[in-house]
Amino acid sequence: MRRWGSAGQGPTEGPKNERPDTSRLPVSEDRRTAHMHGGRDVANDASTVFDLVILGGGSGGYAAALRGAQLGLDVALIEKDKVGGTCLHRGCIPTKALLHAGEIADQARESEQFGVKATLEGIDIAGVHKYKDGVVAGLYKGLQGLVASRKVTYIEGEGRLSSPTSVDVNGRRVQGRHVLLATGSVPKSLPGLDIDGDRIISSDHALVLDRVPKSAIILGGGVIGVEFASAWKSFGTDVTIVEGLKHLVPVEDENSSKLLERAFRKRGIKFNLGTFFEKAEYTQDGVKVTLADGKEFEAEILLVAIGRGPVSQGLGYEEAGVAMDRGYVLVDEYMRTNVPTISAVGDLVPTLQLAHVGFAEGILVAERLAGLKTVPIDYDGVPRVTYCHPEVASVGITEAKAKEIYGADKVVALKYNLAGNGRSKILGTAGEIKLVQVKDGAVVGVHMVGDRMGEQVGEAQLIYNWEALPAEVAQLIHAHPTQSEALGEAHLALAGKPLHAHD
Amino acid sequence: MRRWGSAGQGPTEGPKNERPDTSRLPVSEDRRTAHMHGGRDVANDASTVFDLVILGGGSGGYAAALRGAQLGLDVALIEKDKVGGTCLHRGCIPTKALLHAGEIADQARESEQFGVKATLEGIDIAGVHKYKDGVVAGLYKGLQGLVASRKVTYIEGEGRLSSPTSVDVNGRRVQGRHVLLATGSVPKSLPGLDIDGDRIISSDHALVLDRVPKSAIILGGGVIGVEFASAWKSFGTDVTIVEGLKHLVPVEDENSSKLLERAFRKRGIKFNLGTFFEKAEYTQDGVKVTLADGKEFEAEILLVAIGRGPVSQGLGYEEAGVAMDRGYVLVDEYMRTNVPTISAVGDLVPTLQLAHVGFAEGILVAERLAGLKTVPIDYDGVPRVTYCHPEVASVGITEAKAKEIYGADKVVALKYNLAGNGRSKILGTAGEIKLVQVKDGAVVGVHMVGDRMGEQVGEAQLIYNWEALPAEVAQLIHAHPTQSEALGEAHLALAGKPLHAHD
Repeated sequence: MRRWGSAGQGPTEGPKNERPDTSRLPVSEDRRTAHMHGGRDVANDASTVFDLVILGGGSGGYAAALRGAQLGLDVALIEKDKVGGTCLHRGCIPTKALLHAGEIADQARESEQFGVKATLEGIDIAGVHKYKDGVVAGLYKGLQGLVASRKVTYIEGEGRLSSPTSVDVNGRRVQGRHVLLATGSVPKSLPGLDIDGDRIISSDHALVLDRVPKSAIILGGGVIGVEFASAWKSFGTDVTIVEGLKHLVPVEDENSSKLLERAFRKRGIKFNLGTFFEKAEYTQDGVKVTLADGKEFEAEILLVAIGRGPVSQGLGYEEAGVAMDRGYVLVDEYMRTNVPTISAVGDLVPTLQLAHVGFAEGILVAERLAGLKTVPIDYDGVPRVTYCHPEVASVGITEAKAKEIYGADKVVALKYNLAGNGRSKILGTAGEIKLVQVKDGAVVGVHMVGDRMGEQVGEAQLIYNWEALPAEVAQLIHAHPTQSEALGEAHLALAGKPLHAHD
Repeated sequence: MRRWGSAGQGPTEGPKNERPDTSRLPVSEDRRTAHMHGGRDVANDASTVFDLVILGGGSGGYAAALRGAQLGLDVALIEKDKVGGTCLHRGCIPTKALLHAGEIADQARESEQFGVKATLEGIDIAGVHKYKDGVVAGLYKGLQGLVASRKVTYIEGEGRLSSPTSVDVNGRRVQGRHVLLATGSVPKSLPGLDIDGDRIISSDHALVLDRVPKSAIILGGGVIGVEFASAWKSFGTDVTIVEGLKHLVPVEDENSSKLLERAFRKRGIKFNLGTFFEKAEYTQDGVKVTLADGKEFEAEILLVAIGRGPVSQGLGYEEAGVAMDRGYVLVDEYMRTNVPTISAVGDLVPTLQLAHVGFAEGILVAERLAGLKTVPIDYDGVPRVTYCHPEVASVGITEAKAKEIYGADKVVALKYNLAGNGRSKILGTAGEIKLVQVKDGAVVGVHMVGDRMGEQVGEAQLIYNWEALPAEVAQLIHAHPTQSEALGEAHLALAGKPLHAHD
């Protein structure tokens, strides 16, 4: 990625633009209202030139559409399936619904220890899907309403980039002064590993599985893998995770990985770390997975959760001259491709594959095109949450990365154990908060493990992004007894004045 | 309360001190280690003069002890019951355990809507107490360990202030260069309303009640009242709250009160607002409450939850010349009484009755006595959480208060409905975030209602106390799908760039 300018100073003109980027000019109210009804009629008018044509209605695409329209741009949003994309329909939202159903099941299972007489009879998987689909449908409806109210021209159909300033869809050409590519990602597989949708499945299939599998092997111990492992275990599945790297959630701080591994071990979720997958074969009634060291695992199904790859083939990107790398569209810090009239955001570009990164990138593009000053995203400052039981959440950099950047003797790390946190004790969860600080300086990493600790990432995000000193957080005594108090206590301790923690 | 100095500049010498306050001088390591074993032996030595003698081992008292000892002060902590006080043994912690047991019960009761087949058979109240007592015991043990490790001299016994520099306990005199009064509070009642501990009970009794009452009237719709109402309703009790003021949680922003009332109505928790209590009488098998307008309510028990009053009678405070008002010990912003050698903190002084306020006040006193620069507490900046279902949380000031201070035309309020928040939808909770902003300025109030929204108060606390502009929060795209995202969305909307919200 190239840097066009220093942080805080967005470009007012793209250096490679060959013609004035008129889409940055304010658009008159007249032009805007001309499209107020949205939809196909407008798109059918071949003479229309939109300010912004967006290919893909997932998190990045629709965020750009909503923000762009709000800023007065004439926006066309093209989506082949449903607005909301992976996140809403096949990702964040449905998986969290499964996980919450899992939480309900776990709490019923463990109710006795809280003095509640409840019996868990089992999982009604059709009921789980109904609940999950209800959540998705509600949010989908809300999102459709937003798109309509913002007067975005929404076009349902499979689009293809036909020039640097147009997308072909439904046999028609939609022209734009600028085009945003936001075609997202799909589950990846490995060479020779065929996802059949029956015994060897992807997360897409797992989300609509019509039964609770008796046993499952999950290939991949990243976010997607551990979330499914967690939900299925809560549902009663015998789960084994196979991860080639040394740890579960391997991009997290090693301490978080270890804490999650400890918690999963306690829950009876099995995992095999540090050895790569070799092959999968069908058995009489399931799948057998063999690792590089010859170790074998058998289960009813195999979930391939090794990550998601960009959707960029056959969409005309190469033909339009868009620079790409291994399927990803390359962009600079302002989400600009090498083609002046084309930007790209979301899972399609090689940044963090998170819905809220898509939002931020989409908003950045819309604001840039509307002529607002924009600031590149600090990806280290983006909060990350893995919603398994217990949750893993972080913002900022790991201790290892901090030591690389600042030197080992310039980095201080502090761990606060949730055993000292009243609210966590009440919830019955174990975990830790680990803070990484530049010696005598700001907190540059917050790493948390524990049930519901994902919700603390909002505060952690402010601490990191506003470059707070431990003493500045420590000064603010947190609410007792909350889990947020643990974040306060950790900062008290890091500031040298531990309250509910040993010196 | 008097102001000794401007915020940020603590006094280095109390203006009314008649002799040098030597307790502020650093204490040598020798003197400190002389008392390292703590406890009665040292206290029996009549020649010992502690730097700080603390009367009361609740939140305010023990926080002062822990911080004081850490800073090298010789500290004696005198407690008649158990260190931890009301909060740990009869307040925050046990009530939150009841509420969590209630959550477990509710989730089992409503499990079908999540696709989980669980049956709630009932509440095993002995089991609830065992769980609750286990939580308390664990935290109590941890706290005892902390007190011991910090080398605080802990004295169990009923103390009485015998002079401006001494407390008598167990027939002995414990002398200190400074004395901190931290004797806390007890449940209040009304004239003519006798709490018998059987049918007419206080929160102390409610916490150890050996059954789930079939029906209960709760006198008082403040924090304590609505928390018990919530827990008992979850347990299956038919609950009616009687509140003389116009709203439940009447000190909260009116919007929060209304949302809570709506949620309680939906849960079948009854309440009668705006009419004061007249009398309570025994019936054959319960209690009848009559209001000022003649309206009558009957139930198995009556919980009197009209607040807590200071414990200050017969403790020698008046005799030592400590200025008081209606039982509260009066203090300035540095928690100093009118007697130079005496400070007071916690529920005993007329500030917010919250454990974490006690912590903050206790720490302030310890740091002041140790000679550190101290800053008066901004009580508006203290986060408040009511842990009912749904939770109510806030920091900063209400819209009404903001309008009083800044003028009605200088205040902007914005509401963000949790219906648009994916995580809240997954949890099945309704609620809102209301932001109060000084026009074109900082956010001065954050008011939230919704299950688990109490945990968002940590982030809200930073926003308020760091005087954040809406745009500064809006710039940080929050994690999707978390409830913290709702706080982000609310700030996006307030900054004029709503994402998942209508313009």
